[in-house]
Amino acid sequence: MTQPIFPEITEDAVTRMKSAANPRLREVMAIITRHLHDAVREARLTEEEWGQAIDYLTRTGQTCSATRQEFILLSDVLGVSMLVDAINHDDSGAVTASTVFGPFYSGLQPELPAGSSILKREEPGEDVLMSGHILDADGKPIEAALIEVWQTAPNGLYDVQDPEQPAGHLRASFRSAADGSYRFRSLLPVYYPIPGDGPVGELLDAMGRHPNRPAHIHFMISAPGYRRLVTHLFVAGDPYLESDAVFGVKPELIVQPETSAEGLGIRYDFRLAQDA
Amino acid sequence: MTQPIFPEITEDAVTRMKSAANPRLREVMAIITRHLHDAVREARLTEEEWGQAIDYLTRTGQTCSATRQEFILLSDVLGVSMLVDAINHDDSGAVTASTVFGPFYSGLQPELPAGSSILKREEPGEDVLMSGHILDADGKPIEAALIEVWQTAPNGLYDVQDPEQPAGHLRASFRSAADGSYRFRSLLPVYYPIPGDGPVGELLDAMGRHPNRPAHIHFMISAPGYRRLVTHLFVAGDPYLESDAVFGVKPELIVQPETSAEGLGIRYDFRLAQDA
Repeated sequence: MTQPIFPEITEDAVTRMKSAANPRLREVMAIITRHLHDAVREARLTEEEWGQAIDYLTRTGQTCSATRQEFILLSDVLGVSMLVDAINHDDSGAVTASTVFGPFYSGLQPELPAGSSILKREEPGEDVLMSGHILDADGKPIEAALIEVWQTAPNGLYDVQDPEQPAGHLRASFRSAADGSYRFRSLLPVYYPIPGDGPVGELLDAMGRHPNRPAHIHFMISAPGYRRLVTHLFVAGDPYLESDAVFGVKPELIVQPETSAEGLGIRYDFRLAQDA
Repeated sequence: MTQPIFPEITEDAVTRMKSAANPRLREVMAIITRHLHDAVREARLTEEEWGQAIDYLTRTGQTCSATRQEFILLSDVLGVSMLVDAINHDDSGAVTASTVFGPFYSGLQPELPAGSSILKREEPGEDVLMSGHILDADGKPIEAALIEVWQTAPNGLYDVQDPEQPAGHLRASFRSAADGSYRFRSLLPVYYPIPGDGPVGELLDAMGRHPNRPAHIHFMISAPGYRRLVTHLFVAGDPYLESDAVFGVKPELIVQPETSAEGLGIRYDFRLAQDA
């Protein structure tokens, strides 16, 4: 073990925060400062590399807009988002597992009646009927839960990425019925690449990684007295289930579509945790 | 020692880079990924805190412009810039110590004849004659070295921060003479706060830190066959020498102005390292 380089600057940086009004900020910034310094020491970053890192972070911030959040995407591809998810969510199986929020939520959409389609124009994809229940950890129905859903079109793009799509296409909100049930029509989702034209795409290329996410539908489910659930349903058989570019897959979120008299359907019951 | 949270995501993130074309990128990104994950684990970041961090980084990128580099400033106030400096520069004393580049360099300025003033308008500050030599590690003069200098006006602002100042005010380039000498007229620099109206100012406030830098003049000195030297000269007696907001002070860079027949003067000989 060699002597760490310039250890006193780290102690100085941490000590200078001693008058921070918020002790949690002081704690978090001390941890971040120590790890950031140790990473720079361990990598023995050159000034040119440091300059490249500054430029990279600057471009990542400047790629963000009202409809694009490149820093969330960076956190996603580095596994940070799923790590934060793991720290903050019980994965014991009593309630539905959560996964990444992703950068493509675009705010609360109008509520549609149960059974409606979330398409705002026709698409060449495969129709699917999504249905199931919103339940508590004991399996008791939750009435009037807000169910927000979003997914890409068959071209692999969300409405906010694709000027050809009508705004709000393949997004909607629903409310669960008295028996906790929900039901809507959509398309079987497809796998797609995350945006490759910004700093995150550049980094994935440089790391020799593919940019694809396995097919999924996003769900965000909220009800008074329960923790908001942010999750996806993935489709069994997808080629990218084992190598999701954002590490978002959990086995219990993979569903198998089944054919009935109503056509192709996916059934899934979500269980919400009570508020702490 | 408790079991680390979700260790497999870190291994997965690192393993997925195995096909990176550039082995140095793979090495650096593996180090960054491990430290980033460990920092998130150690802090047990909540989702709200993670969201605040994303928002902070986004705003930092978006605060950058052609004349402002908020990510360099963030690196500076966290002590990262001076750590990178320490990793990459010999501080044995044979050559002049380097310090932070800072975010306010604005490109190569026109060369002025030796002895010129770098002011483009009159200012209420105290006149000072800067002089000395550009030498190699053995004390031999270096002729025609490019000496770039920049500093704030007495109001504590650089020209690029202050629309009232003429462009290029208190900035200039000079060439050393055959005997290595340089000489120019300027003002005794003043201490000043780094910009407080962006994310870095906000963070300093939250950390309970003052934003001030002790009075200094920036120098960047280049000559063929030598490593470019990026440094400052600080003025003895400044109240912020012990607590520079960006950790940039090194004792050997502190100078004592002296009065002679020519008025107030600062003499300093710079010694450059040979190219590796």
